[in-house]
Amino acid sequence: MDPRKSENEGNLDPDQSGLIYQMALDIGGSLAKLVYFTYDEDCAIEGKDGMSPEKAVAKSKGSKSCAVLRGKLNFKIFETSKINDCLEFIKSVKLRLGGCQRQENPGSQAIAVKATGGGAYKYTDLFKERLGINLDKEDEMDCLVAGANFLLKAVHQEAYTYMGGQKQFMDVDHNDLYPYLLVSIGSGVSMIKVEGDGKFERVSGTSIGGGTFWGLGKLLTKCKNFDELLELSYQGNNRVIDMLVGDIYGGTDYSKIGLSSTTIASSFGKVISNDKEIEDYKAEDIARSLLRMISNNIGQISYLNALRFGLKRIFFGGFFIRSHPFTMDTISVAVNFWSKGEAKALFLQHEGFLGAMGAFMSSDQHELKKLLENKAVHQQASSIKACAIAGDLHGDESIECCVYSV
Amino acid sequence: MDPRKSENEGNLDPDQSGLIYQMALDIGGSLAKLVYFTYDEDCAIEGKDGMSPEKAVAKSKGSKSCAVLRGKLNFKIFETSKINDCLEFIKSVKLRLGGCQRQENPGSQAIAVKATGGGAYKYTDLFKERLGINLDKEDEMDCLVAGANFLLKAVHQEAYTYMGGQKQFMDVDHNDLYPYLLVSIGSGVSMIKVEGDGKFERVSGTSIGGGTFWGLGKLLTKCKNFDELLELSYQGNNRVIDMLVGDIYGGTDYSKIGLSSTTIASSFGKVISNDKEIEDYKAEDIARSLLRMISNNIGQISYLNALRFGLKRIFFGGFFIRSHPFTMDTISVAVNFWSKGEAKALFLQHEGFLGAMGAFMSSDQHELKKLLENKAVHQQASSIKACAIAGDLHGDESIECCVYSV
Repeated sequence: MDPRKSENEGNLDPDQSGLIYQMALDIGGSLAKLVYFTYDEDCAIEGKDGMSPEKAVAKSKGSKSCAVLRGKLNFKIFETSKINDCLEFIKSVKLRLGGCQRQENPGSQAIAVKATGGGAYKYTDLFKERLGINLDKEDEMDCLVAGANFLLKAVHQEAYTYMGGQKQFMDVDHNDLYPYLLVSIGSGVSMIKVEGDGKFERVSGTSIGGGTFWGLGKLLTKCKNFDELLELSYQGNNRVIDMLVGDIYGGTDYSKIGLSSTTIASSFGKVISNDKEIEDYKAEDIARSLLRMISNNIGQISYLNALRFGLKRIFFGGFFIRSHPFTMDTISVAVNFWSKGEAKALFLQHEGFLGAMGAFMSSDQHELKKLLENKAVHQQASSIKACAIAGDLHGDESIECCVYSV
Repeated sequence: MDPRKSENEGNLDPDQSGLIYQMALDIGGSLAKLVYFTYDEDCAIEGKDGMSPEKAVAKSKGSKSCAVLRGKLNFKIFETSKINDCLEFIKSVKLRLGGCQRQENPGSQAIAVKATGGGAYKYTDLFKERLGINLDKEDEMDCLVAGANFLLKAVHQEAYTYMGGQKQFMDVDHNDLYPYLLVSIGSGVSMIKVEGDGKFERVSGTSIGGGTFWGLGKLLTKCKNFDELLELSYQGNNRVIDMLVGDIYGGTDYSKIGLSSTTIASSFGKVISNDKEIEDYKAEDIARSLLRMISNNIGQISYLNALRFGLKRIFFGGFFIRSHPFTMDTISVAVNFWSKGEAKALFLQHEGFLGAMGAFMSSDQHELKKLLENKAVHQQASSIKACAIAGDLHGDESIECCVYSV
């Protein structure tokens, strides 16, 4: 989860033992997200005789219920500005790419890797020249939606609410998932009305996103990275920076219109009347004001769009959130405040990898997708949910997973 | 219009000659706005024999059409953090308060002055102790709406559109004024659905307003005041600071969802990948990014609220705008972009004094209001429009005005 790790770990692979079966990239404005599956020959029930996963799946079709793909889904992030680290990493594991990507063109050395995000376009020549990899571009919104739909359907306890420090998992009924608003908070923010598999529209967005938090934070504090700034905000007090209703009204509420004395009237507004220089403010107070300003704004615009299209649920994803309690709390409070308690913010356990997961699932060759699209499998969803993907996805982590065929 | 002026000019009165008839204050989080009317005994047709304006009005009722109040509406602003300047100014002109305020309590020395905004509550004791003035508090939203309604009805060419450098006046049909969305951009932003005289609801707002622009600007640049920062933004280039769609997509558009390569994907997002310190950025570039970020956000949230309530017109007021072309252009572009050309941003000539004008009009004693509420006068609206208030209202300015009775 921590972009610093990519600097320190260089091209180390968290799982050197497995053969890489499938890889996908989501290269955004700030971060490049990499998802790859390493299957474990010892554990793959049908694959332990050395046959390919495709053959194993084919063979398993007749049996009642057994794991056909077992291994690890690995997640790794790099800063987009340090794309060379990403290239080095892929170079170091490329020889072990044994899945469909090589087999698509058995006679050639070219390897195709699914990729999404603006960087898939920007760095297409770089990947080709340096690694001989063709970035097989998938639309960013397609991938975000496919990733979110997959996770919400396939992963047990994927969605949860967060308010007042309480995390509460929400079971999503597959038959009552759509429509919903997907809010993806990366450097910027996209808001997508999702009505079904592949049926969606980007209805709004805002340029005030994660890039704004870290960009302004970098200018205003001496923090060296996003996570440090985020952690600092825990200890901060935004009342030193923000102009509250009580500051304007002499400590009282403006109760006639329902604004309490502690409501923020103007973000960074208290700075105006202070005779202080930038150095006189604590970095943690600045971090907290920034985070509240941005989270609150995203929550508000999201709610207004959900209202506009009559969407009951708003799912928030993207790397800005990072399961950060204060970020989620602020977004939840904003949605609750503006909707007068009628709408709820929902978060995704695997928030940061929606686009990369969508790209990963977009390969027609990919058995994971085939299996999950199989109705028989869906009917046994609970067993798949529990097994297919479990655990929190944090950068540079991997999770055990297996897929059953029934 | 320039807050610096209040420092330099001390307690000078722009019109020492006239007797002050009526005064009203709007004390906001950043700025205190003062409106007062000085009537000119030489010019007041019915008042030249020295009779009070009230008597003059009463006398004029029988005649066909003649000016009964002629003089100047004076506008002055102070920084709220320097409220003492405001007190000193009022002290210097207090003796000349000859209008209704003194007459309301003929036996006492106490003077009542209409006041609105949070500062009317915060500074109530200060005004009483230092000046013997009772701040007669009027609700902030009531005043904003009353001020806007009055100006839109009474002032010729009050409303205009601004886009691509073109200012286009819009005639407002009195019978088709309501409903509209009033967006008041002060330190924070209030959004009010207005359905008639005194019939309104504050439906939304945002803490990202003028206080955020100046607060963040003060921290990020060496600018000494709001106007300097605003002027700097003219020369700035936000592309050095903001992450554009083209920066992510390698110079190309993301045409599938209608985002051109020059669309801002992430405000301040380019700062992330630059190895620059705050001193390495030009103040004008920072000012421009800030202004675009804030204006665009206000335009977007305003549009979403107008859409929500089916409001065709959005009027923008408040001191943040200050007839600043780039601010108005950004707000107009935002409303146009998000509404896909279906909604238009409208601006008010007298944007900064809506609340103060509303407070000024709220006195039951005030003949200006009485006359304007008179149906006979409304029927002759064109002559009143042209005469009652003309010219741009800028801080520390005064405008000639007269009111006719018909």
